[in-house]
Amino acid sequence: MGFLELLASQLRSLPPESAEGIISTDPGDLAEYGRDWTKVYEPRPLALVRPRSTAEVSTILRLADEAGVKVVPSGGRTGLAGGAVAKDGELVLSLDRMNKLGAVDLVGRTLEVEAGAVTQAVHEHCASAGLTWPVDFASKGSSQVGGNIATNAGGIRVIRYGLTRQWVLGLEVVLASGEVLSMGTALEKNNTGIDLRQLFIGSEGTLGVITKATLKLAKLPHDDAGRPNDVMLFAVADLAAVISLFRAVREAPFELQAFEFFTDKCLARVERHRKLSSPFAERAGCYVVIEADRRGDSDAFLTSLFERELVQDGTIAQHASQAAQLWALRESISESLSATGLPHKNDIALPIAALEAFTSELEAVIAERYPGWEVCLFGHIGDGNLHVNVMKPDALDKETFLSKTHEVDAAIFALVKAYGGSISAEHGIGLLKRDYLGFTRSPAEIATMRAIKLALDPKNTLNPGKVF
Amino acid sequence: MGFLELLASQLRSLPPESAEGIISTDPGDLAEYGRDWTKVYEPRPLALVRPRSTAEVSTILRLADEAGVKVVPSGGRTGLAGGAVAKDGELVLSLDRMNKLGAVDLVGRTLEVEAGAVTQAVHEHCASAGLTWPVDFASKGSSQVGGNIATNAGGIRVIRYGLTRQWVLGLEVVLASGEVLSMGTALEKNNTGIDLRQLFIGSEGTLGVITKATLKLAKLPHDDAGRPNDVMLFAVADLAAVISLFRAVREAPFELQAFEFFTDKCLARVERHRKLSSPFAERAGCYVVIEADRRGDSDAFLTSLFERELVQDGTIAQHASQAAQLWALRESISESLSATGLPHKNDIALPIAALEAFTSELEAVIAERYPGWEVCLFGHIGDGNLHVNVMKPDALDKETFLSKTHEVDAAIFALVKAYGGSISAEHGIGLLKRDYLGFTRSPAEIATMRAIKLALDPKNTLNPGKVF
Repeated sequence: MGFLELLASQLRSLPPESAEGIISTDPGDLAEYGRDWTKVYEPRPLALVRPRSTAEVSTILRLADEAGVKVVPSGGRTGLAGGAVAKDGELVLSLDRMNKLGAVDLVGRTLEVEAGAVTQAVHEHCASAGLTWPVDFASKGSSQVGGNIATNAGGIRVIRYGLTRQWVLGLEVVLASGEVLSMGTALEKNNTGIDLRQLFIGSEGTLGVITKATLKLAKLPHDDAGRPNDVMLFAVADLAAVISLFRAVREAPFELQAFEFFTDKCLARVERHRKLSSPFAERAGCYVVIEADRRGDSDAFLTSLFERELVQDGTIAQHASQAAQLWALRESISESLSATGLPHKNDIALPIAALEAFTSELEAVIAERYPGWEVCLFGHIGDGNLHVNVMKPDALDKETFLSKTHEVDAAIFALVKAYGGSISAEHGIGLLKRDYLGFTRSPAEIATMRAIKLALDPKNTLNPGKVF
Repeated sequence: MGFLELLASQLRSLPPESAEGIISTDPGDLAEYGRDWTKVYEPRPLALVRPRSTAEVSTILRLADEAGVKVVPSGGRTGLAGGAVAKDGELVLSLDRMNKLGAVDLVGRTLEVEAGAVTQAVHEHCASAGLTWPVDFASKGSSQVGGNIATNAGGIRVIRYGLTRQWVLGLEVVLASGEVLSMGTALEKNNTGIDLRQLFIGSEGTLGVITKATLKLAKLPHDDAGRPNDVMLFAVADLAAVISLFRAVREAPFELQAFEFFTDKCLARVERHRKLSSPFAERAGCYVVIEADRRGDSDAFLTSLFERELVQDGTIAQHASQAAQLWALRESISESLSATGLPHKNDIALPIAALEAFTSELEAVIAERYPGWEVCLFGHIGDGNLHVNVMKPDALDKETFLSKTHEVDAAIFALVKAYGGSISAEHGIGLLKRDYLGFTRSPAEIATMRAIKLALDPKNTLNPGKVF
């Protein structure tokens, strides 16, 4: 009996009995489920399996591990580093049928969900209780909770709420052996030995498959009168001005919820793809979206930004739909770049104190190595995170483009290393950055990661070839 | 050459050359450095070593690992679970001479420190910049940063700021082999493979010795006019009333910074030991300390607490010294219990939603199993954390007392397990709770912890016999 027949027969023996639709080798399914949002790899999975329960996930992994079949865990596949790509005959294990949402625990402010729950569905589920899971980014309509946790997703609220890691209380994970680890429940505090949850958060599916999570929720941000946060958009000259504005705003009499920037080149792509437009009469070099709570009197502070010539223009949303319009400019960028061209993406982080020195050197590298190319910069500058998108020139073929960008990556990453930065702030390593891991992690660190991988997945069944 | 002679000669060859005072076998040193704040173990270390640099720590560990000498990492030894006790001829490796504080990075809001830096010294170092490391608890005058990180310390600000884990950016750790891992710097975001830092945070010295950390800092809490938070004390009838008050205060128009409670028995011990007194004319069953920011108008809300009969009495500190007096009532409890008797301590956590049902069952267990004994309850009820202190009756000898409390622990922990709680919210496992780890962690989890231990410390050199 071949592996897939064996798997099908074993799955049929588990309740609920019908295994109909769990295993697929349909070419359309394989093409769809074998890739993520990176465009550089050809999907070539053995098969797709879409289990309905932790018991099924356990059976699938146990059989695959025994048979030497490699497994790629799969969430919403919105990743940008190839972490969910199956290009070498792996079994794709999609969690998308395991998407149950539990009842919101109003007293404990927690929520138990299955790993396949879509981020935005979680937000909508909690909103009526005045609560949210503050993991928020442009791909929330497709990304799944399990994938967010496996990649320790960042996004637009990190400056206020931190990364996904901070919003996970309990975690259920299936190891390559099929063993199920149920780690913690709705506990804020649980200092009882090594915190195994932390190991799986951000490990990109290399150590185990996340099947369930108990999420920690936060109050939806609003002022005493129940009004939501202020959302503002500012126009400034350049990247140096973005950083100056950030320094000033850190001392503002309000708490920052988000501080995002993008260049005019990003805006132009958004205008082309989404038919959105800037609220300002004149174009500027860079734009900054700020979301802040309404604490204290911020009018005098905001006026002072103009007086101190820290901004060229600015607007505050007067109602929720205006706020959404301002946010849409920022949130449509990634999608607009992909829809209007082929971006080569870098997602780097620097210590905040090093941002100014780093970015001026980065701009010099870009000007010298990509003369005349379109480079779209945006990101969460408030946590030191810069998205560098180099667009393929129309005249260049894809292969030449990729080889050129990989060559320049080494120069950019050397600069990142020199400033104590990271080659991947939030996208992860996956396939795309694997060869560059040594720019951010030492040989001793990589050896330690491999020792842990060997301890938990001795046959290298889970997401082989990714990360390290 | 014996191990200590070999160690001394190797340390002499490292710069700075004099190894004077690094190694001690003085009985007073051994008694002092061989124990922590638990009183139940006799210290019996081989020797004490007090290195001055990461290079010295690396040499010590490499030699000990080669020679089969076991090592107990030692911080401020304020632990309450025996994690830093050396009772079986181990080498105690104290970090107390490595206590340098770097310059506060005002832009990045970070601080690099050596592991032996005392918590309070860190607070004082940052305060003039309007910043703090929001890891705060009663033993901050002795506890060290490395120990706080190794135990993922909790404390009185967890409800607002989370555990120590959230306030650590970079970490330098020496493995048992002597290999040095430098993990991250001042980066908020760094999704590049397994986050090894998380493995060491809370592992109680079983996986590596922390030598340096880059700490994330927060703004010192104050309102727009620069005034510090409001500090309030309330008197309520009993534990059920504490929980009702917590539910009400969660909906208050201010952000909670702390929500701490203690029973009248705790207060009586504090009055005896510290000569402090309650500000209220009448005694109550329980007291609650609340610290909150001044956001919005909280007067109407506070008045409503009396109208709704959620509190019996209450006071708001009018100035900083009154605030300190209210806090002193809470912060002196642990010290006062130890100074006036022998407490048997349990530090348990429950899902917040389960607190009411759990505590009424707990009270029944205590009344039945400890009839007439003095039980002092206090804790951080806002994060589900309850400190249960059973005082040794004068008429009972220590051995009978310990055997009785261990017997009752099993009953309490079974209850904790039934409610999905933790047998150690913040104290850790150490020696004291090791036999009970199975009440909170499954066999699969414990096996996974051991697999990781074996991968990182194959000769079981670091803190053997602790945790798992």
